[in-house]
Amino acid sequence: MRVFIVKANEAHTDYDFSLKDLPGTSGRIDLICRALNSAFHLSHSFRKNVRVYVTLLGPPSPPKTIRFEGPKLRPKILNPDELSIAKVIIKALNAGKNLKGSSTKELEVLPGVYVSNMTFEDVIRKNIRMNLYVLEEGGADIMKVKFPRNNVAFILGDHIGLSEEDLKTLEGIAKKISIGPKAYLTSHVISYVNIHLDRIGVP
Amino acid sequence: MRVFIVKANEAHTDYDFSLKDLPGTSGRIDLICRALNSAFHLSHSFRKNVRVYVTLLGPPSPPKTIRFEGPKLRPKILNPDELSIAKVIIKALNAGKNLKGSSTKELEVLPGVYVSNMTFEDVIRKNIRMNLYVLEEGGADIMKVKFPRNNVAFILGDHIGLSEEDLKTLEGIAKKISIGPKAYLTSHVISYVNIHLDRIGVP
Repeated sequence: MRVFIVKANEAHTDYDFSLKDLPGTSGRIDLICRALNSAFHLSHSFRKNVRVYVTLLGPPSPPKTIRFEGPKLRPKILNPDELSIAKVIIKALNAGKNLKGSSTKELEVLPGVYVSNMTFEDVIRKNIRMNLYVLEEGGADIMKVKFPRNNVAFILGDHIGLSEEDLKTLEGIAKKISIGPKAYLTSHVISYVNIHLDRIGVP
Repeated sequence: MRVFIVKANEAHTDYDFSLKDLPGTSGRIDLICRALNSAFHLSHSFRKNVRVYVTLLGPPSPPKTIRFEGPKLRPKILNPDELSIAKVIIKALNAGKNLKGSSTKELEVLPGVYVSNMTFEDVIRKNIRMNLYVLEEGGADIMKVKFPRNNVAFILGDHIGLSEEDLKTLEGIAKKISIGPKAYLTSHVISYVNIHLDRIGVP
């Protein structure tokens, strides 16, 4: 299983935004949509071996975490384009209104799509037994990293990135890695990591 | 300069589609939008050294070719999300209505955005002095390819791909290369190629 954990610092936690202008009104849910496209989609095929957690931390009721579970997801539900993925996120946010308090209990919204009130730290805690990697400029070159055959989890920020505090929390827990000499978009990083794991034969 | 040439087999050549459903109504202009995002966008930055040609071959008036010229493009015009990129494409298609006949003459629609009636073959001919690569399953492993320092051009298909005829035309002109063991989405391939060129220091 490949896991991607995305921290979306400003992504709205209720459907109070416009599908006509995701970048301007949703706290960059467009970015999350492209990240999910990169995580799951292949040409005429779908990566069943991927799990994605997105933690949304924008207004009005953070945190909300949506988990996308490759083995159970119906490819027809998660189309490649931004708008149809955004509609799945909206469905999850609408269902998430019924979640009370700080429980990590998840609600199944659609097959393979779960919403909860989990914080970013909760998600990390849930994945603590995985081999954790944090994608950061200046990290170890991905080409030189020896990945285990299984249970790899990659932590990524959004346009704002991970905070100093996040990186401190992750110190000693997650290995800092980097895919190249520039600062790349979250979705491009996920594409690159997925293809790299394909190349080196990590399932 | 890095050049990406995308053949969009079914992409509509007039604005007769709905922005609310690009995958279902436009012949997959959503795919072109993501390809342009991958070609140009970095985190809080923009690749000025990239040129993209997209040849649209869908109804009602094919062919139309849109050229995006990194050095002249205003990053604010080409936002990362699908809808705002689609609006730039629509602007080009609207302007393209005035183009008559099979001339390869280009019309500047916005700074760095040009539309013409060029065919896919015209675009290849225009780039014949470049070092041409065609992205195809089973091509030479990109890691083993020695790229020149300049003038690299990559030819890609869309969800339908390049035809047998295209590949025959490109034989002896373009080197077949591949980025990994699976069939990848056009936008993911562009992301991977861009990052790979960054890594090996091709400008």
